[in-house]
Amino acid sequence: VTLSHEIHLASRPDGWPTPENFAFVEVPVPDVGAGEVLVRNTFMSVDPYMRGRMNDARSYAEPYQLGQVLHGGALGEVVVSESPDLEVGQTVLHAFGWREYAWGPAGLFRAVDPAAAPTVSAHLGVLGMPGLTAYVGLLDIASFQAGDAVFVSGAAGAVGSVAGQIAKAKGASLVVGSAGSAAKVAYVEGLGFDAAFNYHDGPVARLLRTAAPDGIDVYFDNVGGDHLEAAIGSLRLRGRVALCGSISGYNTDAPTGPRNLGLATGNRLTLRGYIVSDHGDRMKAFVGEMSQWLRDGTVRYDETFVDGLAHAPDAFLGLLRGENTGKMIVRL
Amino acid sequence: VTLSHEIHLASRPDGWPTPENFAFVEVPVPDVGAGEVLVRNTFMSVDPYMRGRMNDARSYAEPYQLGQVLHGGALGEVVVSESPDLEVGQTVLHAFGWREYAWGPAGLFRAVDPAAAPTVSAHLGVLGMPGLTAYVGLLDIASFQAGDAVFVSGAAGAVGSVAGQIAKAKGASLVVGSAGSAAKVAYVEGLGFDAAFNYHDGPVARLLRTAAPDGIDVYFDNVGGDHLEAAIGSLRLRGRVALCGSISGYNTDAPTGPRNLGLATGNRLTLRGYIVSDHGDRMKAFVGEMSQWLRDGTVRYDETFVDGLAHAPDAFLGLLRGENTGKMIVRL
Repeated sequence: VTLSHEIHLASRPDGWPTPENFAFVEVPVPDVGAGEVLVRNTFMSVDPYMRGRMNDARSYAEPYQLGQVLHGGALGEVVVSESPDLEVGQTVLHAFGWREYAWGPAGLFRAVDPAAAPTVSAHLGVLGMPGLTAYVGLLDIASFQAGDAVFVSGAAGAVGSVAGQIAKAKGASLVVGSAGSAAKVAYVEGLGFDAAFNYHDGPVARLLRTAAPDGIDVYFDNVGGDHLEAAIGSLRLRGRVALCGSISGYNTDAPTGPRNLGLATGNRLTLRGYIVSDHGDRMKAFVGEMSQWLRDGTVRYDETFVDGLAHAPDAFLGLLRGENTGKMIVRL
Repeated sequence: VTLSHEIHLASRPDGWPTPENFAFVEVPVPDVGAGEVLVRNTFMSVDPYMRGRMNDARSYAEPYQLGQVLHGGALGEVVVSESPDLEVGQTVLHAFGWREYAWGPAGLFRAVDPAAAPTVSAHLGVLGMPGLTAYVGLLDIASFQAGDAVFVSGAAGAVGSVAGQIAKAKGASLVVGSAGSAAKVAYVEGLGFDAAFNYHDGPVARLLRTAAPDGIDVYFDNVGGDHLEAAIGSLRLRGRVALCGSISGYNTDAPTGPRNLGLATGNRLTLRGYIVSDHGDRMKAFVGEMSQWLRDGTVRYDETFVDGLAHAPDAFLGLLRGENTGKMIVRL
């Protein structure tokens, strides 16, 4: 019997998660039935949205179950196949992360081209769900138009770094990013953002006004809180906000709201929330454009790797603390 | 020489306006030139948006000028005409309120049918700008669809009372209104709202949940503050908010923001601000439908009258304090 290890949700976090909320569990790998495959995972994703699923609360996705294995995006290699659709050795993308081995009907695993990007793990980031999140949020939710001035928070992260680069590629007049350290600010500037600031350097509203003195047309929000309030104060007539996430509020019982939301009336602002899984119909257009941007160097990406399934909780906690530059990935 | 009286902005309010912010001024009426008319005003409107114009701040409209006459919607009777377009005795709608006489090129005055509604002053309310505000906000901004459950704040006011009735007329599954007194709640219920509550009776979030236990699809926001937060907490998937106004924050330096705005991401909420003056192209459709609704009794309206130009500031202050039921109008 082959043994696999997985990470279970041992208890629900109250505020910031701790290592005690996770359990490292050994399980037997079952026999592979007809039409099924066995996959040895090579990379798994940790993403901010996972924090919300650890609460037992109404959310857009089912909460993670207590005492059960976590899940999320992962890449692996087919090691046993009882399906004509997948061959041993193929690289597959699937939703059974947080474990060493994944198995099930072949239809739940999608073969990907490992050479489509400089690293295969790009399928978990710039070419995958985070990349599509940036693409849909900027173009469809915030209705970005060439000439718009754009502000992106979490700009060194997997989604924000791509959103800003797409805005540049599509003709933004200005792209400003915010991040949480001087090193990240340098990284964001290196990606081609016109300006970036460290939000620890002062009130966000002042830092944003300095970076975009004539205001902004689009705000891509990964953060919420004072970032959102600052953006509302800087948005010009008919400005648009893509509400992608609000990581600043994920681990607190007392998030703050934008006190200046009244400006939305006179300035005809639109704020719109979205979830990338509603927008699978955009995947083809996205992959087509993004593949070209990666080939010609228009879009660059970085990855922060943590090694070993046992350290996946550390990778997740580090992500919430902003320790990653670009996509945070666990290498198994 | 004919003399007219007008109300000037004597000083800018700091927080709640006071009578000292207004001056009652006597001015001579000039001769009427070619192409011009002289109009004796009969009714003038006071509206919440006027509070914003009293600030010297960036807003959607030019701020009122210090030491100058205020302005706003008014109705009057042509008393002198040097234009072939308007006759003496005609009733006209125009933007030169806060004064006894108005004058200028005939093109700035629009003749209206005094018999189009039970009261001529309806042209300042249900058949005028506030009615169009309700119509556009509900149908175009919040994309109301038959079957939606709708919550309207300021439901006894000129805009809210109409928004709720339009929702009922167009097939809402539920229409809930909030207002600031038991008498107003009774009034709102009498208009055909399915439920109404007095927001002084407890936390708005709890009162709303009781009135709409299955949640809402549309929130028509005239109030902001805790009403908006409560609505965000009750909005279902793909819920929509028309940000029409936020009277709760107009007279304070410390408005509150919705602390639960993070829910907008997972619930795919859209919040959208608008100004009715952008939507003049909808006036014809609106007047067509509203005239019919008034004729067949589908939409009812009420008016609160204050007599005399000298009491216009009192009418405006009373409006901000919520002393009106339906449209607040100054009868000259």
